[in-house]
Amino acid sequence: MSPRQSPSDTGRLAHFITIDGLKRDTLVRILDTADTFQTASDRQVRKFPTLRGKTIVNLFFENSTRTLTTFELAATRLSADVVNLKLDHSSTQKGETLLDTLRTLEAMHCDLFIVRHSDSGAAHFIASHVGDEVSVLNAGDGQHAHPTQAMLDCYTIRRHRPDLENLRVLIVGDILHSRVARSQIMALNTLGVRSLSVLAPPTLLPSAIHALGVDVADNLDEAVVDKDVIIMLRVQYERMREVHVPGPEEYRRQYGLTEERLARANPGCLVMHPGPINRQVEIDSSVADGPQSVILEQVGNGVAIRMAILSMMLSS
Amino acid sequence: MSPRQSPSDTGRLAHFITIDGLKRDTLVRILDTADTFQTASDRQVRKFPTLRGKTIVNLFFENSTRTLTTFELAATRLSADVVNLKLDHSSTQKGETLLDTLRTLEAMHCDLFIVRHSDSGAAHFIASHVGDEVSVLNAGDGQHAHPTQAMLDCYTIRRHRPDLENLRVLIVGDILHSRVARSQIMALNTLGVRSLSVLAPPTLLPSAIHALGVDVADNLDEAVVDKDVIIMLRVQYERMREVHVPGPEEYRRQYGLTEERLARANPGCLVMHPGPINRQVEIDSSVADGPQSVILEQVGNGVAIRMAILSMMLSS
Amino acid sequence: MSPRQSPSDTGRLAHFITIDGLKRDTLVRILDTADTFQTASDRQVRKFPTLRGKTIVNLFFENSTRTLTTFELAATRLSADVVNLKLDHSSTQKGETLLDTLRTLEAMHCDLFIVRHSDSGAAHFIASHVGDEVSVLNAGDGQHAHPTQAMLDCYTIRRHRPDLENLRVLIVGDILHSRVARSQIMALNTLGVRSLSVLAPPTLLPSAIHALGVDVADNLDEAVVDKDVIIMLRVQYERMREVHVPGPEEYRRQYGLTEERLARANPGCLVMHPGPINRQVEIDSSVADGPQSVILEQVGNGVAIRMAILSMMLSS
Repeated sequence: MSPRQSPSDTGRLAHFITIDGLKRDTLVRILDTADTFQTASDRQVRKFPTLRGKTIVNLFFENSTRTLTTFELAATRLSADVVNLKLDHSSTQKGETLLDTLRTLEAMHCDLFIVRHSDSGAAHFIASHVGDEVSVLNAGDGQHAHPTQAMLDCYTIRRHRPDLENLRVLIVGDILHSRVARSQIMALNTLGVRSLSVLAPPTLLPSAIHALGVDVADNLDEAVVDKDVIIMLRVQYERMREVHVPGPEEYRRQYGLTEERLARANPGCLVMHPGPINRQVEIDSSVADGPQSVILEQVGNGVAIRMAILSMMLSS
Repeated sequence: MSPRQSPSDTGRLAHFITIDGLKRDTLVRILDTADTFQTASDRQVRKFPTLRGKTIVNLFFENSTRTLTTFELAATRLSADVVNLKLDHSSTQKGETLLDTLRTLEAMHCDLFIVRHSDSGAAHFIASHVGDEVSVLNAGDGQHAHPTQAMLDCYTIRRHRPDLENLRVLIVGDILHSRVARSQIMALNTLGVRSLSVLAPPTLLPSAIHALGVDVADNLDEAVVDKDVIIMLRVQYERMREVHVPGPEEYRRQYGLTEERLARANPGCLVMHPGPINRQVEIDSSVADGPQSVILEQVGNGVAIRMAILSMMLSS
Repeated sequence: MSPRQSPSDTGRLAHFITIDGLKRDTLVRILDTADTFQTASDRQVRKFPTLRGKTIVNLFFENSTRTLTTFELAATRLSADVVNLKLDHSSTQKGETLLDTLRTLEAMHCDLFIVRHSDSGAAHFIASHVGDEVSVLNAGDGQHAHPTQAMLDCYTIRRHRPDLENLRVLIVGDILHSRVARSQIMALNTLGVRSLSVLAPPTLLPSAIHALGVDVADNLDEAVVDKDVIIMLRVQYERMREVHVPGPEEYRRQYGLTEERLARANPGCLVMHPGPINRQVEIDSSVADGPQSVILEQVGNGVAIRMAILSMMLSS
């Protein structure tokens, strides 16, 4: 049985595994809720009693200090109790199965698992096996999805350009292996941007890319023209054993966002990147640190969007 | 001087090192206190101000994610401040002695140490050396004792079968190395169960077993007959270097709890296990996951019982 | 640009990197503020709402369980949210630069970084690069400074001997590599002790020692005479690759604080050590555990002094 993630009549999200299948008004409600937390955060009131008494477990099978910290802060600022479990080996060290580990945590009355895993489908698998009282949030599973990243990206775009339906967005980089890109494409299409294009090295473009509802560009100098938002993806050499990818310098020459290229985009075109960035590879430092970059804003918005999603999953 | 662990006139437990020497009414009071927390937990009110401002240190010299998480949750839900120290090497890395580490933590005004150690007697040693204002709780020391596990087991039994004095209980497995079994035997005898038997492979039965006040059975098919509670122990191959133990299949054939065997016990006989379980070795999956199993309930009760004990040790 | 650490008109400390440059009345105000927290701590009221909603990050590039625990407790008892990051490798593991890590944490609205690093100048570097809204506290950087340790030492001295201007203080040990000694010398001189001397093995004495405003002694038996406070430094063999240092027994014979030597100092002379101690090397057990030792008091005072400094940096 597939886990129910669509909101119930009360608007509560049981799980948050993928953008796929979520309706436009659910995404808009997430963005609106994040606005509340972000506004409060700007006023230096950053602690909310919303999830007091709830227990949130960070279940990280894949190491990511940055993502773990964001979720820990989001949960803590909502006054939840947080337990961080890095389960590379400790869970299986006594030969316990994953399901027994889950059932054990569930029995301890944990309310929500934030799952990070290198296997596509892991969060979905876990959500299919937990009881009704436990919610599962996908913090990145293999090459499948990273839905909170996609939501924070949409949130960042909307804060600068509320007229989403007029925007032309370009995503550049390793689309094939990117759970971030997959989730971004679904979210941006659901929110109804005017046009959405991707550009990737040929070996890093999924064969079924058109089924995702995007245009495919093949020359970055031309593709940037008339764009309002350019999202650069991280080159992850460690995930690219089997495919041919150009080296850093050649990659930059063909697929890197330079000042020259950015100058060809629409005035005020936003520059985004999920981080961490490879400077002078997919993005030049002068662009990443330049006036059109909202990369650090994405990070801050990431806390607000995760507070929004956690509160929509758990508050009663 | 031996550390005082018996309750004072005010009912406060100075330390909680072993079941040995505790009176029946102390154990009953722990079970009754756990009831309060468990009931509240069922109503989704899980945060209590009881230990606000107190500092509890998890001092784990032996790795155990499961036990650490349970204690962390118990302390956090009582609003204590919690510090987790995994001291495999970090404490001794600068050549500091254990006693100096303890005195340092004590000087920081920590109120309670939860100690997990692979050496029998470690918690007792620590309790003998801390000052009057610090309490020590034994979370498992070598092959000596694991008193909070025993209390949660008694609590789980009592919730299902309040008529303890009518119950026949059987413990099956590695009695020799099991701190869990040792503590269970003392707790169940103190609470006055009708009969208590153990069954173990001959090499895993302590020579002085009769002194503990239990009957010894030697055939599992016969021993289960007329039992109301069967507690299976984990086969811990990693602790059995020097003794002969049958391999997994042979172990299951002689000492594993199967559906056939369970069917010979009293109707509604409870099936228990401290976890994590070795499926198809000491217990079949169909039994562990079956209707008579209360294994996951034990885990949830573990949080409540630890909240009870911590609050009885620290609240003034 | 050098980071501003001097207090603003409102008395708020922007950063706390070094004692160097701080005025006497700033140090006195820190000591007075610590008194408030210490008094409360003695009454077992240990939780303050002062920093509720603030986020403090322990950014430890160098492992130190003891120091990390002290800061974690200090921040927690002020009700701040605390994130512990051990960044030996995890930050750089994805090739991210230190500055990008800092900017990321800053973007998450973290208010204060507590920095521990093996490189001299690391905390200063970080303070120079964070934004106006982030404060940086130096928890020890290479051989440069450890200002909170110096302040807790001064605090400990003042509690026993408020007449600082009458005190003769001696620091004994590895002055060359000691960030602790460097900070102590600055703090004690700023607070105006009557005389301050150091004594070190010749290879462990900085060549520019006189510029620090201390006398240099060369015979411990003579140097202790008429002293009111003796501070022993830890022998850190792991930091002494390139210089000749006597072995433990020879070190003790020439530079160790024994009962005989202590007996030659002024009556009631305080014995101090930043810990952890090497028993029977730089200090004898009978002295470290004796009636004139305030070594464990230093640890407890360390929490109070850090609460004072954190609250002066963050409370508005």
